[in-house]
Amino acid sequence: VIFLIGFMGSGKSTVGSRLAERLGLPFRDADRAIEERADASIPKIFEAGGEPRFRALERAVVADLAGGPASVIALGGGAPEDPATFESLRAATTVHLDVGYGEAMARLGDGAGRPMLAQEDSKALFVRRRALYRRAAALSVATDGRSPDAIAEAIAAELRAGRARKRELATVPETRRVRVAVPGAAHDVVVGSGISGSLAGFLPPLADAEKAFVVTHPSLAGLAGAATRALEGAGLEVSSALVAEGEASKSLSAAGRLLDELAEAQLHRTDLVVGFGGGVVTDLAGYVASTYLRGVAVAHVATSLLAQVDAAIGGKTGVNLARGKNLVGTIHQPAVVVCDVDLLATLPRAELVSGLAEVVKYGLIAEPDLLETITARAGAILAAEPDPLVEIVARSAAIKARIVAADERERGERAHLNYGHTFAHAFEHSSGYGALRHGEAVALGMMAAAHLAHVLGRLPAETVEAHRTALASAGLPTSAAFEPAQLEGAWRLDKKYRRGVRFVLLSELGRPEAGVAAPPAAVHEAIKRLRE
Amino acid sequence: VIFLIGFMGSGKSTVGSRLAERLGLPFRDADRAIEERADASIPKIFEAGGEPRFRALERAVVADLAGGPASVIALGGGAPEDPATFESLRAATTVHLDVGYGEAMARLGDGAGRPMLAQEDSKALFVRRRALYRRAAALSVATDGRSPDAIAEAIAAELRAGRARKRELATVPETRRVRVAVPGAAHDVVVGSGISGSLAGFLPPLADAEKAFVVTHPSLAGLAGAATRALEGAGLEVSSALVAEGEASKSLSAAGRLLDELAEAQLHRTDLVVGFGGGVVTDLAGYVASTYLRGVAVAHVATSLLAQVDAAIGGKTGVNLARGKNLVGTIHQPAVVVCDVDLLATLPRAELVSGLAEVVKYGLIAEPDLLETITARAGAILAAEPDPLVEIVARSAAIKARIVAADERERGERAHLNYGHTFAHAFEHSSGYGALRHGEAVALGMMAAAHLAHVLGRLPAETVEAHRTALASAGLPTSAAFEPAQLEGAWRLDKKYRRGVRFVLLSELGRPEAGVAAPPAAVHEAIKRLRE
Repeated sequence: VIFLIGFMGSGKSTVGSRLAERLGLPFRDADRAIEERADASIPKIFEAGGEPRFRALERAVVADLAGGPASVIALGGGAPEDPATFESLRAATTVHLDVGYGEAMARLGDGAGRPMLAQEDSKALFVRRRALYRRAAALSVATDGRSPDAIAEAIAAELRAGRARKRELATVPETRRVRVAVPGAAHDVVVGSGISGSLAGFLPPLADAEKAFVVTHPSLAGLAGAATRALEGAGLEVSSALVAEGEASKSLSAAGRLLDELAEAQLHRTDLVVGFGGGVVTDLAGYVASTYLRGVAVAHVATSLLAQVDAAIGGKTGVNLARGKNLVGTIHQPAVVVCDVDLLATLPRAELVSGLAEVVKYGLIAEPDLLETITARAGAILAAEPDPLVEIVARSAAIKARIVAADERERGERAHLNYGHTFAHAFEHSSGYGALRHGEAVALGMMAAAHLAHVLGRLPAETVEAHRTALASAGLPTSAAFEPAQLEGAWRLDKKYRRGVRFVLLSELGRPEAGVAAPPAAVHEAIKRLRE
Repeated sequence: VIFLIGFMGSGKSTVGSRLAERLGLPFRDADRAIEERADASIPKIFEAGGEPRFRALERAVVADLAGGPASVIALGGGAPEDPATFESLRAATTVHLDVGYGEAMARLGDGAGRPMLAQEDSKALFVRRRALYRRAAALSVATDGRSPDAIAEAIAAELRAGRARKRELATVPETRRVRVAVPGAAHDVVVGSGISGSLAGFLPPLADAEKAFVVTHPSLAGLAGAATRALEGAGLEVSSALVAEGEASKSLSAAGRLLDELAEAQLHRTDLVVGFGGGVVTDLAGYVASTYLRGVAVAHVATSLLAQVDAAIGGKTGVNLARGKNLVGTIHQPAVVVCDVDLLATLPRAELVSGLAEVVKYGLIAEPDLLETITARAGAILAAEPDPLVEIVARSAAIKARIVAADERERGERAHLNYGHTFAHAFEHSSGYGALRHGEAVALGMMAAAHLAHVLGRLPAETVEAHRTALASAGLPTSAAFEPAQLEGAWRLDKKYRRGVRFVLLSELGRPEAGVAAPPAAVHEAIKRLRE
């Protein structure tokens, strides 16, 4: 017996019948079996006995089918939520059809007739269930961008090779703690799968805290529920504010509104602000926390790859002015940064790709081994598999933590983290902010920096190629057409621009040098080579 | 020969003729002698030869009169500006009629026919000339609130006793430096007379600074001129912004406007912000400097007594929210704090009195000797005499510096600086902000704290009386009628309120204890005794 599980919209029925054909087995839909046993439609079952009644029927049907003749059985999306069903699935040959969140939502349309989707935030439901599917199944198969036949064929191949039986059941990767040893403000970055609901347990002792104030985006409010409940469970009175998505929220006026709300909620200096989101939220919440009552504690739950590996770590907070990004801000170390890689499963692929640019950066400036990991596991990373994500997030966090601890206020080594960013800011500026994702700009910026170092005779051609290989394997761009004149204009507005542009360049992989001046002709040549 | 000098409106002619009568000497007005010698009116002299021509005539006339028969001679306000005249005055018996700035302005009306007043900011002119008068004269006599006859009689008595001859010529008090040894951000508070024009010399090395941005009030722009010229003289490009006077300028919107202006001026992270003003300016400029580009250097020139002894020292910055004062802010130590006591001469007496409340506080919590200094020299302090002002400002700064260096973030001892302030904030709140000056509220707050400590059996009645004596000698209030119920409401909004109100109380003079809880009945009794 082969059970197929997966989120609503993962294609269990379609793939299941194709798989059954290939294996020469009958195909069953568990929901139909439940309707037969109850002699009622599923909506009627829910109406009469609610979810408990439905899960009890499902439990019995799964147990029967598991002990019955060989067949391929598609299960309902919520089946593994029942502990007994979960154990039946783990004991059987269970295959998880791993659909992306965006794809699933596109297929579901308005969600009509999907009772759970009406009751619960779709992202929170998706993240919780995906973790259950992965743990219940012997095999997870990515479905995005593949036809039902191709997926069925891939599963059949795995089954024929016996891999679905032999492979150990997927386990939750170990949670890793990275210490950010900033003098006077040491704290942890905690990286793991499914850990955002354990937020309260990761906080340092906040002896006199009575309240917490959660800042997040409307689209993340459901996902933030687990963290919020964890804080309430720890005895804190929790209030929250929603800020619109996008850079526009990193404004003094948005900060002012949040400060008014903190005062309204009567947060005291011993209380806690929580930033639950990507870089926009963590920059803004950190800024607000650093200036409210001259500084209250902030904890970040980073929900984007960029935030997990970069923005949420290191204490830089910031809001934008009309004249430029991050012109206002503070350095305010968080009490803890929680990086739950499960949350990354709801991100569009392009955003994961963009976040990988910073991971590649760490590889280039500090740990060339990391580039091999990215190249080798790019597929699994972009399919948001927890293991490789925990691996790359924890390693990136460790690199950033080491640099920040040595140079919190960017008087030296911390500038190495700006590798590629001088070009990137200019690329973003001259494309108009938003036209290029930040990670795409950083990828192009690092390529330009590599070309520049090569033009200056500081770096061999192979190392330029190593940049290209790593970035391309992560799905990042490696060439673009810019005009040198546009970039000059952008640099003059940069807050780091003083008596000419200075670059971070490599002398070999893992050996960056900051403050390198370059003649305009060399910069022009680098920009020209970026077109290749 | 007795010369009378003083600012326009100090009453030199009136007092001079009364003094001449008493001494049985003729009275001369130097301006009349100049007109006789030139055979032209003073406006005509200025018209024909400008100020140089006038000063040359004045120089000759003063020399003639000094060598002539005994008489009382009133001089024009600008006479000591000429170095030769200045020396003639120092060699003769010269009396300075020391009028307050507010009194002088009230007497001058619109300043018509006063050529210098039309050309120069009146406060800057007043401060510069007052310093000249004090150095040129053997005797300075305070004139505010005294009749011409009383002043003439006082001068005659001094002359008869030979004190105007014997007394050493007033010298500029020595400039004192107080080190604020905050770990990682040590800096000086420089206290002296006439030192604001030396600002650039007091700055620590700012290797890469190219620009300075001065924040001040419109009414202080003239006074800030000397400091601005000093910065320009040191090679900095100086721009500035004016903010309206009053607490309303301590707002997020005012801060936002300044941040935009800093970006517009393209200040870099190695450049300098200067706060030139009282607590409103230093709190706001400090806040803005701490958040612009994640923190640029700020230097304060404190122009109020409150700012010189308290607000500008210790790195606390702040702006207000609708719900309360200083709810937003940072800790950002300045690069230097310059306290030029000459600038205090333009303050209304009530503001000096208000500032003295914090000085009395330092005496009460840390250095009881300071109370004796205040009591003994209150008259000279309130007449803005440089010597006692340098003395009390430097001693106050030293006390605050010691406490801040030991406990920058107010985790312990720094809370002692809030002595009287828990009551004071509630008094201010329940009177409506602005009805009570801050210093008056602090004075009453310290009285209430003394009563409370006495009620709790922590402090003997004599120490309560010591509070009253010191505060009264400084002209501060020591009793007021408040209702306990009003205060409770205000305390609930206080950012330090957590699980009940806590007070800083003394166990003896110079021995404060923070975090003392008091039963409501004791607080009510203290408020009741404050009515006495």
